[in-house]
Amino acid sequence: MTTVIQSLDTIREVIIAALRAHGADADNAAAVARTLVAAEADGCQTHGLFRVAGYCRSMASGKVNGAAKPSVTRLGPGAVRVNGDGGWSSLPLEASYDPLAEAAAETGVAAAAIVNMFHYAALWPEVEAMARRGYVALACTAYKPVVAPFGGNMPFYGTDPLAFAWPRGPHGSDTDPVVFDFATSAIARGEVQVAMRDGHQMAPGTGLDKNGNPTTDPAEILDGMMLPFGGYKGSLIMMMVELLCSSLIGEQFSFEAGETDVEDGGPARGGEFLLAIDPTRFAGDGWAEHGERFFARLGAIDGVHIPGDRRYQNRRQTPVDGCSVPLALWAEVEALAGHG
Amino acid sequence: MTTVIQSLDTIREVIIAALRAHGADADNAAAVARTLVAAEADGCQTHGLFRVAGYCRSMASGKVNGAAKPSVTRLGPGAVRVNGDGGWSSLPLEASYDPLAEAAAETGVAAAAIVNMFHYAALWPEVEAMARRGYVALACTAYKPVVAPFGGNMPFYGTDPLAFAWPRGPHGSDTDPVVFDFATSAIARGEVQVAMRDGHQMAPGTGLDKNGNPTTDPAEILDGMMLPFGGYKGSLIMMMVELLCSSLIGEQFSFEAGETDVEDGGPARGGEFLLAIDPTRFAGDGWAEHGERFFARLGAIDGVHIPGDRRYQNRRQTPVDGCSVPLALWAEVEALAGHG
Repeated sequence: MTTVIQSLDTIREVIIAALRAHGADADNAAAVARTLVAAEADGCQTHGLFRVAGYCRSMASGKVNGAAKPSVTRLGPGAVRVNGDGGWSSLPLEASYDPLAEAAAETGVAAAAIVNMFHYAALWPEVEAMARRGYVALACTAYKPVVAPFGGNMPFYGTDPLAFAWPRGPHGSDTDPVVFDFATSAIARGEVQVAMRDGHQMAPGTGLDKNGNPTTDPAEILDGMMLPFGGYKGSLIMMMVELLCSSLIGEQFSFEAGETDVEDGGPARGGEFLLAIDPTRFAGDGWAEHGERFFARLGAIDGVHIPGDRRYQNRRQTPVDGCSVPLALWAEVEALAGHG
Repeated sequence: MTTVIQSLDTIREVIIAALRAHGADADNAAAVARTLVAAEADGCQTHGLFRVAGYCRSMASGKVNGAAKPSVTRLGPGAVRVNGDGGWSSLPLEASYDPLAEAAAETGVAAAAIVNMFHYAALWPEVEAMARRGYVALACTAYKPVVAPFGGNMPFYGTDPLAFAWPRGPHGSDTDPVVFDFATSAIARGEVQVAMRDGHQMAPGTGLDKNGNPTTDPAEILDGMMLPFGGYKGSLIMMMVELLCSSLIGEQFSFEAGETDVEDGGPARGGEFLLAIDPTRFAGDGWAEHGERFFARLGAIDGVHIPGDRRYQNRRQTPVDGCSVPLALWAEVEALAGHG
C-alpha cells in the first residue's frame, strides 16, 4: 500500500477544512480535529483520518448538526448532563470534563450523561482526560444493532465500547494514565471488513450469518451479525453498557438507534455514560503508590503489557516522525477538503 | 448422590448453630446465615451450605473476627466507607445499604468502600439490595492470586467477581431487578474441582499448568492457574476490578492477599467496591419504562434469557418444596453445629 508521511499540523488543517466544507462551524471542526489528530498521533488509524468521510457524510445528510452548541446542566451534586445539541461528541465531551471533575471533587464520585450527540470516535480521550485530572474514569456508549446477545440469533447490541482509565498520580502528576478502550463485541466491524478485502476467514465464535448460524466468512458476518466478546459473560457486560448509556441517562438503545438512523454511513445518535471517582476521597493519600506496586508486579510478568503504553510511545514519536497515511485515504480527505 | 430435603428454617438454624459454635456472635451468625440461606433459596448451592465449613475454619484459625462490629463513615456527599472490623462481609454490607442509598439519593451517584472484611459469598445480594432501593448497582471484589493475566504465565488476579443490577422500577416497585454476578476468571474454581472429581477435561483456554503452559487437565490447572474470561478484553476487566476494590478504596490486591493469607481454606481479607446510581436523577421519570422496552425486546429473542430469572423462580419455589441438600454435606454442617 502506497503511503505518504504527513505532519500532525498538516493533518489537522486538512481535517478542519474538510469538516468546514461540509457544515461544521469553527468550534466543532476544531474539536473533532483534536479527536482525530489525537488518534493519528497515537497510531490508532482506524479512528483518525479514516473517519473523516463519515463525519462529512453525516453532516451533508442533515443528520448531524455541525454548528451544535452543547449545554451543561448540573443535575445534582454528583450528576452532570451535557446536551450535545445534535452535534458531534467531541465538543460536548470536552465541555463535560471540568464540571465532572468539579462534581467528583465535591462528592467523591460523579457521573456525566452526555446525550443528544453522535459518537464516532474512540473513548480513550475522555477517560484519559479525567484520569489526567486525578480521577478514576469509566466510559461507555452504544451504537446500532450489529451484535447478537449470547445464545440469540438476531442483531440487538451495538459494538458498545467500554473504556477505563487509572491515574498514576494525583492531578498535576505527569505520568501517563493506564487506559483501556475496547469494543465489547468479539471483533470490531473494521476487522471483518479487512478480512473480507484480504480474503481471510474470521476466527470461530466471532459472528453469525443472517439466519443466526455460526460462520467464519466475513461477508456472511457483515450481512449477519457479530457476537459478544467472552461468551455469556461478555454478553452480560454488553447488556450493562446498553443500560448505562441508554435508559439510565435518557438516550437511545442500540436497537432504537437502528430504527431511527438514516444510514448515511456515520454513527447513530446516542449517549455516553462517563463516571469519575476520586481515589483520594476513598483511600486517602497512599492510593497512587499502592497502584504503582500493582503495576510494577503486573508489568514484570513475562508477556504482559500495561494497557495504553503502545499508544503513548506512538504519541511521543509521531511529532518527530510524522504519520504514515495511505495515499488513497489522503487523496480522499484532500478532496473532501476541496483541495487540489 | 443421596440428598435430603430441608426447609429454609431448618437450614438457617443449623448454619447459625455451626457459626456460633466456631466463634460468631449472634449478629454475625444471623447476617451470614441470611446470606447463605438466600443462596440456598435461590438454588446457588455453591454459595450456601457448602461454604459453612470454610466460614467455621476461618474463625477457628483466628483469622476472621466472628464478633466484628462494623462501623460506617461518610467520607463525602457521595462516598461511604464501612470498616468491617476484620469480620465477615455480610454485616458490613448490610450496614452499607441505607447510607449508600441516602448518599446516592442526595448526589445522583455514590459509592461504598467496604474494607477490612472477608468476602466468602456471592455478590448478587448486595447489588439486588441496592436495586430494590431503586438504584442501578455495580459491585466487585478481589480474592487470592489464582488467575494469570492474558499473555502471562503466573497467577496474579483473583477470580474477581463482578455483579450488576438494574431496578425494574423506582423504590417500592415489587418487580425483581435484573441481576448478573460472575467470576471474571474463565471458570470458577469449583468447576475445576468438580471436573477433577468426575474425571473430565476442562475446555481449552480456561487454564495453564504451573509452568504457564496451556492444559485442559483439571489437576494441572488447580496446581497451576486459571485464565481470564474473554481473552485480553476479559483480562482488562479483571485489571479494572482489582484496581476498583484495592488501591481505589485502600484494601489488598489479590497478589497482596496471597502474601498475607493464612490459607485456612476460607477467603482472604479484602475490599469491595459498591456503586449506586439514581436513574431518576439522570433520566427523569421515564427510565423504568424505557428499560422495560429494552428487556421486552431482549427477552423475545430466541435463546436469550433475562439474567437472574432462574434464581427468582427458585426463590419462589424453595419455601414450598424445601431445598435438596447432599446428605454428606448435611452431616458435615450438623457436625459443625455440634448436633447429633
